[in-house]
Amino acid sequence: MEALEKSAILNAVDTLFDSEIEFLSELSSHPSTRGNEQSAQDFMANELRNRGYDVDRWNIEVEDICHLPGFSPVIGNYDDAVNVVGTHKSTTNKGKSLILNGHIDVVPEGPLDMWDTPPFSPRVDDGWMYGRGTGDMKAGLASNLFALDALREIGYVPAANVHFQSVVEEECTGNGALACLQRGYKADAALIPEPFDEQLVSAQLGVLWFQVHLKGIPVHVAYAGSGSNAIEAAIPLIDALHKMEARWNEPQFRHAQYCNHEHALNLNVGKIEGGDWTSSVPAWCVFDVRMGLFPGQSIDDAKREIEEVLIEAAQGHSFLRNNKPEIVYHGFHAEGYALKDHKVASARQAISKLENAHHLVTGNALNMAPITATTDGRFFGLYADTPSLVYGPAAESIHGFNERVDLESVRRITQTTALFIADWCGLEKL
Amino acid sequence: MEALEKSAILNAVDTLFDSEIEFLSELSSHPSTRGNEQSAQDFMANELRNRGYDVDRWNIEVEDICHLPGFSPVIGNYDDAVNVVGTHKSTTNKGKSLILNGHIDVVPEGPLDMWDTPPFSPRVDDGWMYGRGTGDMKAGLASNLFALDALREIGYVPAANVHFQSVVEEECTGNGALACLQRGYKADAALIPEPFDEQLVSAQLGVLWFQVHLKGIPVHVAYAGSGSNAIEAAIPLIDALHKMEARWNEPQFRHAQYCNHEHALNLNVGKIEGGDWTSSVPAWCVFDVRMGLFPGQSIDDAKREIEEVLIEAAQGHSFLRNNKPEIVYHGFHAEGYALKDHKVASARQAISKLENAHHLVTGNALNMAPITATTDGRFFGLYADTPSLVYGPAAESIHGFNERVDLESVRRITQTTALFIADWCGLEKL
Repeated sequence: MEALEKSAILNAVDTLFDSEIEFLSELSSHPSTRGNEQSAQDFMANELRNRGYDVDRWNIEVEDICHLPGFSPVIGNYDDAVNVVGTHKSTTNKGKSLILNGHIDVVPEGPLDMWDTPPFSPRVDDGWMYGRGTGDMKAGLASNLFALDALREIGYVPAANVHFQSVVEEECTGNGALACLQRGYKADAALIPEPFDEQLVSAQLGVLWFQVHLKGIPVHVAYAGSGSNAIEAAIPLIDALHKMEARWNEPQFRHAQYCNHEHALNLNVGKIEGGDWTSSVPAWCVFDVRMGLFPGQSIDDAKREIEEVLIEAAQGHSFLRNNKPEIVYHGFHAEGYALKDHKVASARQAISKLENAHHLVTGNALNMAPITATTDGRFFGLYADTPSLVYGPAAESIHGFNERVDLESVRRITQTTALFIADWCGLEKL
Repeated sequence: MEALEKSAILNAVDTLFDSEIEFLSELSSHPSTRGNEQSAQDFMANELRNRGYDVDRWNIEVEDICHLPGFSPVIGNYDDAVNVVGTHKSTTNKGKSLILNGHIDVVPEGPLDMWDTPPFSPRVDDGWMYGRGTGDMKAGLASNLFALDALREIGYVPAANVHFQSVVEEECTGNGALACLQRGYKADAALIPEPFDEQLVSAQLGVLWFQVHLKGIPVHVAYAGSGSNAIEAAIPLIDALHKMEARWNEPQFRHAQYCNHEHALNLNVGKIEGGDWTSSVPAWCVFDVRMGLFPGQSIDDAKREIEEVLIEAAQGHSFLRNNKPEIVYHGFHAEGYALKDHKVASARQAISKLENAHHLVTGNALNMAPITATTDGRFFGLYADTPSLVYGPAAESIHGFNERVDLESVRRITQTTALFIADWCGLEKL
């Protein structure tokens, strides 16, 4: 790639940037929480079709993927789970192929009164775009799409196949990305612009979700002494889980990428529901837990230890002792993945090309850092031996209120992505 | 009343008892949880109308009662809250008038799989009728109605006005009984056959319901350390409330009727809900609490202390310290009431007549005992100076699974009630 060509690419991103912001705003106005992604996916499919990509829009079928490594258990069916992939077919195939992946699903917006402005009415203020999903990760879908657009703007397309993926289920299982793999979408590398502050993710954690179902003895509260409160029974179990969390974070158990991280593995009680009448001792309580795992930590071992911890804690409770908590797995069975440990040659090459592109755009060396979350990157890395570059813009308050993404950061990520595509795939004339 | 007449009344209850069981079964098949009492109330109104009573069926209006003593705050309107009163008008008015009160609302049935048979498909087994509400307190509505029927069966009606009341809202506010008072239904005594094992209630507790709303700082669980978990923030507050509960139960604070009761005042965390995503630190949690009060204990003082306890506990929490729990009152603001302390002459007379009737039916002395719950009896006793006799059949597992009522006990209560009516109101020819 010539210097002149590089600067033309950067300029093209600038030229299109107003359109990119407009696209991001429209995409972020679709309230694509889990189960409600259809309109956002229709919008994506349409945008891809208008640009001439081959568009594959399909419903995920559990039976197609449930036997595959990396599958996470789900309750209910997937009638509403739609993936979209737009494919650029190279005519020359001179370069290396690429997956540009992003997820369309966003986490719930929570109580509206805690937002300054409505979460699905995106607004720009002082260089930030506010709205649920703007950062996590619709800005990434935008930068993937407009990086390709920028190349077209100057008369080029990638000289290798590129699969643009807009997937569901990233926030709870990853089964959307898994379904892409199962459907045959493979490439020499994958780029996922998750909002981690323009750093390249060196390692990501595993994540396990589980539900704890507790029973009680329901009686009229007048006789509370003879009942057993299922809500309060959760308290010692939560306490025992936090003790386990502390153990797992001890220095001797840490993965090398997290050795200086005092508390990489977070346990979160994210939801709770119990009881149905204030004057009845509650007969049931369910709470939902997320627990992190280090790369290399076995999901099966983790589940076994969690179950042991809960059963042991239940031994100290007069009713639960004989009415054991039921543990239901519903959601993430995600293993950790460390790009830094990925020994395939293409990993080193891909990282090097991204470093170059990042340096050209920002003037800075590309920082590699581990994250304390999971991403869909694990599927490409672990189950398809494809290096996963997780590298996206700066965002704030993801999963919180007034989520926002830094638009200048989105511009830089789009530029880096365009340069990376040009370098990794090579270019051919449109 | 002659001995012959008494025995005719007892026989008449026996004659009609199959019909009474059938009536109770049909009434208990209406799933009259709060807000869903209409079909049960239609059934009651129809049964009363068929017997020739003047039937008053009306929607409770909050604005009619919200200024009255004993009113409990509610959220939302009362579009669905229907009371039914059937009145027998005496032609002679020789005796004392009477309110026969019962509530039609039942508490939620809870998870169906914890019932041996469906809660709203009543069944009889070994002398018990099973089903939600059979004991609490549709059997009481049946015994009130069939006690009057038994008198008619032998050609008599009460020689004083009798108001048969089927009210809503007993299980959460008592505003149904309050609306009867407001509408002008008064009498010389009230009988409420709540299922307290054929004992006369000497005293009942007050009950206060409150909701505690907590906020948190929602972040992606990857950064849990920078968030504040609203669900886990509930734990120290619940602990502080239990310490308050222990204080309130100390011997020096006990009402005389409860002096030997180690733990009359129960605090119950009956419901909880919080968070909406397993991998987000939850931003909100709400839990619902019921707390008992002794007769004479001030509702306002109790509220003040509860608020102080919660605010003080919040001081120990880094986030809640500056984001105080919000306390919402929604449901019972019920004062305690002690029939035993009721100094009106008619109280002594009514108790004496009930003792006689009970002795005649059971051969035993009537036991008076305090209960650790509230009933609608407080409205008549405290706000209309009308002695409230709370006296009903034996039931088990009220508010629990497989709730059941002892049918022979229902028969005895019906007989005692019929005798009591005959004695209190006197009889006149049909």
